[in-house]
Amino acid sequence: MCESSLEKSGSEFPGGHPRRADWVLLNAEWIVTCDSKMQSFSSGGMAITGDTISAVGPSHLIASQFTAQRTLDLKGCMIIPGLVNTHTHAAMSVFRGMKDDLPLQRWLFEVIFPAERRIADPDMVYWGTLLSCAEMLTGGITTFCDGYFFEEAAVRAAMDSGMRAVLGQGILDTAAPDQDGEEQSRDRAAAFIESFPGNIGRLRPSLFCHSPYTCSAGTLQWVKAFCRKHRVLYQVHVAETAIEVAESTALHGLRPVARLDELGVLDTGTLCVHAVWLDQEEIRILARRGAGVSHNAESNMKLASGVAPIPDLLSSGVTVGLGTDSCAGNNNLDLFSEMDKAAKLHKVFRKDPVVCGASQVLRMATLDGARALGWHDDTGSLEAGKKADLTIIDIERPHLAPLYDPVSHLVYAVKASDVRHVWVDGVQVVSDGRVLTIDVPSAMKEVKRLARKAGGLDGTSIP
Amino acid sequence: MCESSLEKSGSEFPGGHPRRADWVLLNAEWIVTCDSKMQSFSSGGMAITGDTISAVGPSHLIASQFTAQRTLDLKGCMIIPGLVNTHTHAAMSVFRGMKDDLPLQRWLFEVIFPAERRIADPDMVYWGTLLSCAEMLTGGITTFCDGYFFEEAAVRAAMDSGMRAVLGQGILDTAAPDQDGEEQSRDRAAAFIESFPGNIGRLRPSLFCHSPYTCSAGTLQWVKAFCRKHRVLYQVHVAETAIEVAESTALHGLRPVARLDELGVLDTGTLCVHAVWLDQEEIRILARRGAGVSHNAESNMKLASGVAPIPDLLSSGVTVGLGTDSCAGNNNLDLFSEMDKAAKLHKVFRKDPVVCGASQVLRMATLDGARALGWHDDTGSLEAGKKADLTIIDIERPHLAPLYDPVSHLVYAVKASDVRHVWVDGVQVVSDGRVLTIDVPSAMKEVKRLARKAGGLDGTSIP
Repeated sequence: MCESSLEKSGSEFPGGHPRRADWVLLNAEWIVTCDSKMQSFSSGGMAITGDTISAVGPSHLIASQFTAQRTLDLKGCMIIPGLVNTHTHAAMSVFRGMKDDLPLQRWLFEVIFPAERRIADPDMVYWGTLLSCAEMLTGGITTFCDGYFFEEAAVRAAMDSGMRAVLGQGILDTAAPDQDGEEQSRDRAAAFIESFPGNIGRLRPSLFCHSPYTCSAGTLQWVKAFCRKHRVLYQVHVAETAIEVAESTALHGLRPVARLDELGVLDTGTLCVHAVWLDQEEIRILARRGAGVSHNAESNMKLASGVAPIPDLLSSGVTVGLGTDSCAGNNNLDLFSEMDKAAKLHKVFRKDPVVCGASQVLRMATLDGARALGWHDDTGSLEAGKKADLTIIDIERPHLAPLYDPVSHLVYAVKASDVRHVWVDGVQVVSDGRVLTIDVPSAMKEVKRLARKAGGLDGTSIP
Repeated sequence: MCESSLEKSGSEFPGGHPRRADWVLLNAEWIVTCDSKMQSFSSGGMAITGDTISAVGPSHLIASQFTAQRTLDLKGCMIIPGLVNTHTHAAMSVFRGMKDDLPLQRWLFEVIFPAERRIADPDMVYWGTLLSCAEMLTGGITTFCDGYFFEEAAVRAAMDSGMRAVLGQGILDTAAPDQDGEEQSRDRAAAFIESFPGNIGRLRPSLFCHSPYTCSAGTLQWVKAFCRKHRVLYQVHVAETAIEVAESTALHGLRPVARLDELGVLDTGTLCVHAVWLDQEEIRILARRGAGVSHNAESNMKLASGVAPIPDLLSSGVTVGLGTDSCAGNNNLDLFSEMDKAAKLHKVFRKDPVVCGASQVLRMATLDGARALGWHDDTGSLEAGKKADLTIIDIERPHLAPLYDPVSHLVYAVKASDVRHVWVDGVQVVSDGRVLTIDVPSAMKEVKRLARKAGGLDGTSIP
């Protein structure tokens, strides 16, 4: 039983009148709140007013205390917080499955980078991001944290999709599709942040230093200072491969995370993406600085990067969220699949079926993911007063019967395709599996057009 | 281009009349045949006559050479062979997610075995198996290889479902739900095989010796002799955990697979399930004897059993199929998810993104799976003359755009929920995602009733 919600919402009114809400959701078989106590309860209901959750509680109490124009009976359904994808490069759906099963360097230098040189531009970023938003929304993801080039176009796509998003302009000192060298990259950073639309609460800007090996110390620090000044999230890929660690140690005498700490860029406003190769001291550093980690199990597996020390990070108190990485190398944007993989990967790697239990993994995909992005006051759990970001799952399906434990099901049995309805910021964006905000066939058509341009289709050869 | 099919089918008839078929499938965007050359081609068609594939080839040739009462336009779809699930205990869907994240021995002895004692009977086996068939069919699986108790009830469920199946009566020397001790287990084996309905070509009997540690040497050998006499598949769980290997070595001076070889039970009619902990000599033994292996990546990950040496088995020429294991411990029966996991698990475990490529993994889920069951003459690939077991996938979905390579998509991007139509033995059993042979709501209702009886629901406590 979820004790807190109706009280918090102030909706107990013996003898009073029902309160008005925009949406009342009733009779959910289960509500999994993902609040700090990971409370779940059956026969639940919710009320949504504007962009905010007014109340979460027993269905009969919600029914008696709220009236709304739109009421939805959720028999046979489960309500969970919208999932939080802490790492992707959404535009790269254009390269989904372009070439697989190659060594990382060949894949990057012979397939992806040349394809980016051929087609990365605002048009590609807009359509690739929009298609990714469609995929994420239909899979129950309401918030994503992005990093790419021409990120203004990703902002437009996120705006059109209705999703909550942290949108990070990518920064490199080497040549990139929308910048060329250290000075230009700083101009790009400044231009992006300063032109970011300030009037849409569900969109936040960010800067994404590609990595400690593609950005100079000066750039890493300058960008962090700029992020601090503008109070925006600083993202960085770090310690993804063993080679990166060896090179950092050889060049700088420090492992990557230790070096980022020496450069002073680790704090609660920093998101370390991948963080696969960490020693114990680096885990302590991350915990001490309060930096978040985005764990990308499928990407790390498929590219054979390694297995991040997630159980150690969690037991050290580091905030860990889950991320899909780009679907160029994954090859999807499916957090249900990521949850299942993360739970199972760490068990077999640690030879311990108890580590990364369902509840812990579900938290990584919801509240802890939101916390890693610094957005947990608004999203990541179902609690009165938070933004109404929620995902409704149809549990009346053969692969979900019987149901002993809703949290177990969410990690080990539910699939992205079981998502039926989704709300972001109080607005319904998916209804019966259909995205209401995006013309999906058009987005698919545009992405297929771009894929032909990228090569590998219609006779254009790829390596 | 698939060169072989139309020629093989004898359907080239310059100047002749079109042949009659029962089904003509046209305009598939892709056909992935999974034949010995792993040929795929675009704009494909197929003709089905009775239970057999009459032809596979370019759509325009199929259209000009066949007439049929029922023609299906498969624009936006891909045709693949029906998937082959080489290992499950289908009845155990009743225990799906009953308890997770426990050490194996506690899970077995405190959760699963007591639940089986409470409810395993023909009623439970029938409904549990039938629900599993619904899950497998909607996920594109056309053949499954089963092992459980009261297996006659599983035979009835498989019969009703329309699936192709190898149905194995479980054999233990210790107490089991439908037998008690060595003598009785032999009677059960004999009774099962001798009463097996011989008139349904898509069902085959089998015996499943639970393991070398729960069956005596005498039972292992007696059952194998009985299987040889009746020419049926002999299944055995072997080398699943490191503890099993240590105990076998201590008790018998031999590792499990080496011991099975010494007992003379390994040959092309034996399926070794799990085969996680093998040394190089045991891999050579499996290759020499021609025994098949069922690889259960998700089960091995979730139970932290270990990582099977699949790349070594494959390079040694051992036939490896994929299996879901029971959904009590997995917690689903999804071979698309198994393919994705297997491909990614071995990459990260071997630190090599090249191992277990998409093509190799897809073969394990199709033709090699059929081969491991000794049924590759009939199923596992789309070739004229084989039984018509096929799965149609809707590729016009946001998470499948663009499509550079159909085989990559099948392993890394397609989900079970993308399955649209399924044929088994020439009969359409799934249409637009709906199972035609099973009353799915009834099966779900019955399984929920059994789950309440099993404990853990409606107030009955589980450990």
